[in-house]
Amino acid sequence: MISHLDSNSPQTWERFKKHFFWDAQSNFCLDISRINFDDSFSGKMKETLESAISFMADLENGIIANPDEKRMVGHYWLRNSEKSPNAEIKSAIDGTLKKIIDFVARVHSGEIRGETGKIFKAVLVMGIGGSALGPQFVANALGSKNDKLKPYFIDNTDPEGIERTVAALPSLEETVVLVISKSGSTPETRNGMLEVKAKYSAAKINHAGHFVAITGEGSQLDKVAVAEKWLARFPMWDWVGGRTSEFSAVGLIPAALQGIDISEMLRGARYMDDLTRTKEPSKNPAALLSMAIYAATDGKGSKDMVVLPYRDKLELFSRYLQQLIMESLGKESDLSGKIVHQGISVYGNKGSTDQHAFVQQLREGIPNFFAVFVEALRDSVGSGLQVEPGITSSDFLNGFYLGTRKALSDNGRGSITVTIQDTSPFNVGMLIALFERFVGIYARLINVNAYHQPGVEAGKKAAAEILTIQGEVLNSLRGNAAGMTVEELASKIKKDPESIFKITEHLLAAGRVSCDAKAGIFSRRYALNG
Amino acid sequence: MISHLDSNSPQTWERFKKHFFWDAQSNFCLDISRINFDDSFSGKMKETLESAISFMADLENGIIANPDEKRMVGHYWLRNSEKSPNAEIKSAIDGTLKKIIDFVARVHSGEIRGETGKIFKAVLVMGIGGSALGPQFVANALGSKNDKLKPYFIDNTDPEGIERTVAALPSLEETVVLVISKSGSTPETRNGMLEVKAKYSAAKINHAGHFVAITGEGSQLDKVAVAEKWLARFPMWDWVGGRTSEFSAVGLIPAALQGIDISEMLRGARYMDDLTRTKEPSKNPAALLSMAIYAATDGKGSKDMVVLPYRDKLELFSRYLQQLIMESLGKESDLSGKIVHQGISVYGNKGSTDQHAFVQQLREGIPNFFAVFVEALRDSVGSGLQVEPGITSSDFLNGFYLGTRKALSDNGRGSITVTIQDTSPFNVGMLIALFERFVGIYARLINVNAYHQPGVEAGKKAAAEILTIQGEVLNSLRGNAAGMTVEELASKIKKDPESIFKITEHLLAAGRVSCDAKAGIFSRRYALNG
Repeated sequence: MISHLDSNSPQTWERFKKHFFWDAQSNFCLDISRINFDDSFSGKMKETLESAISFMADLENGIIANPDEKRMVGHYWLRNSEKSPNAEIKSAIDGTLKKIIDFVARVHSGEIRGETGKIFKAVLVMGIGGSALGPQFVANALGSKNDKLKPYFIDNTDPEGIERTVAALPSLEETVVLVISKSGSTPETRNGMLEVKAKYSAAKINHAGHFVAITGEGSQLDKVAVAEKWLARFPMWDWVGGRTSEFSAVGLIPAALQGIDISEMLRGARYMDDLTRTKEPSKNPAALLSMAIYAATDGKGSKDMVVLPYRDKLELFSRYLQQLIMESLGKESDLSGKIVHQGISVYGNKGSTDQHAFVQQLREGIPNFFAVFVEALRDSVGSGLQVEPGITSSDFLNGFYLGTRKALSDNGRGSITVTIQDTSPFNVGMLIALFERFVGIYARLINVNAYHQPGVEAGKKAAAEILTIQGEVLNSLRGNAAGMTVEELASKIKKDPESIFKITEHLLAAGRVSCDAKAGIFSRRYALNG
Repeated sequence: MISHLDSNSPQTWERFKKHFFWDAQSNFCLDISRINFDDSFSGKMKETLESAISFMADLENGIIANPDEKRMVGHYWLRNSEKSPNAEIKSAIDGTLKKIIDFVARVHSGEIRGETGKIFKAVLVMGIGGSALGPQFVANALGSKNDKLKPYFIDNTDPEGIERTVAALPSLEETVVLVISKSGSTPETRNGMLEVKAKYSAAKINHAGHFVAITGEGSQLDKVAVAEKWLARFPMWDWVGGRTSEFSAVGLIPAALQGIDISEMLRGARYMDDLTRTKEPSKNPAALLSMAIYAATDGKGSKDMVVLPYRDKLELFSRYLQQLIMESLGKESDLSGKIVHQGISVYGNKGSTDQHAFVQQLREGIPNFFAVFVEALRDSVGSGLQVEPGITSSDFLNGFYLGTRKALSDNGRGSITVTIQDTSPFNVGMLIALFERFVGIYARLINVNAYHQPGVEAGKKAAAEILTIQGEVLNSLRGNAAGMTVEELASKIKKDPESIFKITEHLLAAGRVSCDAKAGIFSRRYALNG
């Protein structure tokens, strides 16, 4: 293996040319030359990559690619319904897309308005995880001052955050509210929905004329939407995972309402799908990316992935990839049941900004990462203001990217560069599709199921247990436990004292219980307030 | 060493009580019980910690704590000028604070207005790295719809991003522009300044009546501000580093203009400084934090630090810490010159949102991290809407935090919890001061200089070299090199072909050169456009 790349040596240039992927039509490029692998490694990987590419073809043909949940994995059909495994799915995709376009056109034209007759000016997106990260990335990447509806997000169960976002809206009257939850029972989203519903109620506006449900048919959320006669309902399907749902109603409705050209996004994703179906790994950018990242991480996440797009508009891409990659690959067991503790940690914001934040450590400190640069060759401004003779701000941005790539490389730190022509909807669609395919292929290389998230349940269960304990504490204080200490409460309700302590601290701060303030923190005796 | 903590065992509760730091007056708490260390480890660390605390006292007394740059390190004086090492510094701090308060009051009252007589409604902050991350964190944490001036940021040299931010301003007429650069020669900030100046010029408004410089006295930026008669100038001092400048003019002016109570922020920082001067490590929260993180990372960054504040308002705290910690600790050599490749990688956004993004991997995947939870006990809304009988959205947030802490702990993943009463300016001030002191102490434990950033230079130098090559390429194409290929250009100007290739791709996309599009990407011949 090569251990160090001297940017100025002729071998480096030869290596660059050899490992440079270029698609002439879109000008999309991928450069994996600055990851440390040699010909014997790519030779060794060839067969596994071919088999992974072939698995992706099976997946697109509708096999049960998510065995634990016994589901097909169909996000590729969303941008090319011709690829659907049956007519029913094709018709669901086509019909929903048509319904989205129609709904959005009627909102934009003013045919659909708020309950008080006002034209919609804002879209409030309520969702979390896969129901928020794609929409947030796209809204930030492709939005502008000319947005038809201005986007706002509630992606948590923090009443402070909800309050602030609602206060920032132009008005409740002018806002269409998308409630997005695939399962229809995500507590954070449910809570946000109830909080916002209460705001509409306080303003004496019927929320139903403003609320839109995007959820699985027949889910809890869907039932509420039907019962309350919400403005509209759009489906989520069990063959689309949350983290790959950007091209379903989840991503398309907010983007289209904002005024983003979703047909161009879909075309970009479809184009990248075509590029990444190529059977020969050395000509398939998703396979090349998978191979390079496998080399960088020893196939076991031994290095973090630092994502540095050199464009402000792509700032949320790393956060989007954080979910896509970590939730897909971060698994305890592989498909054969063997304990593997897999995953790749992903972080980063944008260049050149991050150069002034943590490139100090990347260049000199612990070599526990590889970088993924995203380069957009052209800016849409083209003002060409010369900040120095013959040099624009864009030239500086390009210079900082190349300088950082070199500075890292000279110190033996590997990097990959993904190049797009500009930050158009087409190219943003390409980027998403590239990494979706990367995750699918890479998961095969390490033999894990990329499409489930069993580890999320443990935290949810533990949270539910906390809420149960809180109820028991409050009940006990209502009864004959008033004046008890944490340890006495614990022994009374037979729960662990640490949880009870943390709960009483929270209740105390909220003014729902009180205590003898002078006692030491572990010997306080509690009483119920109000 | 303990290898696994069972949340429900009595030992866990005893351990919790033993390692729980509580300050009764502020209700600030620190829990390091769920990091894997035992009594023999804390015994072993005691002396080193005492020596680090004593070094911090020397630092506060004005020794040259940054030996490479031969500078004092004085951010603690900013919130308590009584601690200044001499009268000159005390007077500079007091005078500047007075000047800040006076300037902001005159802006708020409408005495100071824009060039066209309009009252200022927005503040555009232009800075990068340490001149942006603190202001961004505080603006997001403490801002609201009632901000006196609405904050906007330009923190890059991306013309697309600059264009979009300027377009989002209420108007140039109503905007005060802060240009922040300690050195006064940061290219990104300089470029942004020139781009925005050009916008004012195009709108026929004299920018000087809107621009404020925050920079070292006599710097390049300072000279421009003097020559062009800018609205105001505020000093940066060589004894305040960029990443610890939140309580200097850098952080205080934008926050005060926004309407944030900076005296409460300063009071919170001062309060935490007092807490973290305690000589006994077991009673000093910054020392406890340092010890726990040393244990979690084997004192060599062997685990990443995942920061999860459970409040929307604290979302940018992890990004702030990313710089503070990675730039301070990520060093190649220690103070004795030994190659150490130190650092700690930091990432995270907020809870419970991140539970739906990457807690899957944290819980089940590669165990390459420890978590730092930030808990705010109370929300400022207090609406108390019951989303389930007896349960609020805040209870859910608390439940998700405790559930995740338990789910990680049950799987052998360590965590630390920092608890504040609420997200007030006082408590935000405390948080910043806590981690500033942590960085100071921890750097002593690993014997590195926390206050320089030599690795940033390499990227800057390489970027400058790229811009030089770009100039040479353009010059050559202007001359007798027209029609040459990348390799021919490289041999002509004696620079590496890869840099030239990347530069020509950028120039081509920007329309500044053209080529025979049909040729293969490495055999194109270039000509100058326009």
